[in-house]
Amino acid sequence: MFVILVYDINTKRVAKALKVCRQYLDWVQNSVFEGEISTGKLECLKSDLEHVIKKEDDSVLIFEFDSTKYYKKEIIGKEKSELSIIL
Amino acid sequence: MFVILVYDINTKRVAKALKVCRQYLDWVQNSVFEGEISTGKLECLKSDLEHVIKKEDDSVLIFEFDSTKYYKKEIIGKEKSELSIIL
Repeated sequence: MFVILVYDINTKRVAKALKVCRQYLDWVQNSVFEGEISTGKLECLKSDLEHVIKKEDDSVLIFEFDSTKYYKKEIIGKEKSELSIIL
Repeated sequence: MFVILVYDINTKRVAKALKVCRQYLDWVQNSVFEGEISTGKLECLKSDLEHVIKKEDDSVLIFEFDSTKYYKKEIIGKEKSELSIIL
């Protein structure tokens, strides 16, 4: 399936969450990731993230699609570099 | 078409951007919106947002899908209230 993942994670834990997400998905921008992933791998990703985040403070939103890809992706404004997440 | 919109906007301008996005899409969580929208309305949304954001500081990411809906939406961790965006 194809997924879009968006997280909102405290800066203390965001570097670890970024590392986990990058193991499974492609980084798009800031806190947004996308990619083709199997059901099994997606379960691993969720499990890994649950070990990194604090459930009472952080949140991760995952959209799962049957279709393999979005039609179009567009950015208005600044295309932020990955470094801005970590720094 | 169906769209998912994620913004990263300076707190000075985020309330205005939220108001614009809510006119066209459904608010999901934090800076994430979704919804069915026509091509014409999407152009209006983009134009309205371009009047609100500062292109050198803010960014808006829009995924456009041919399909009408995602398969599944899942939240890990905290389901944040809308108020947390504005306050």
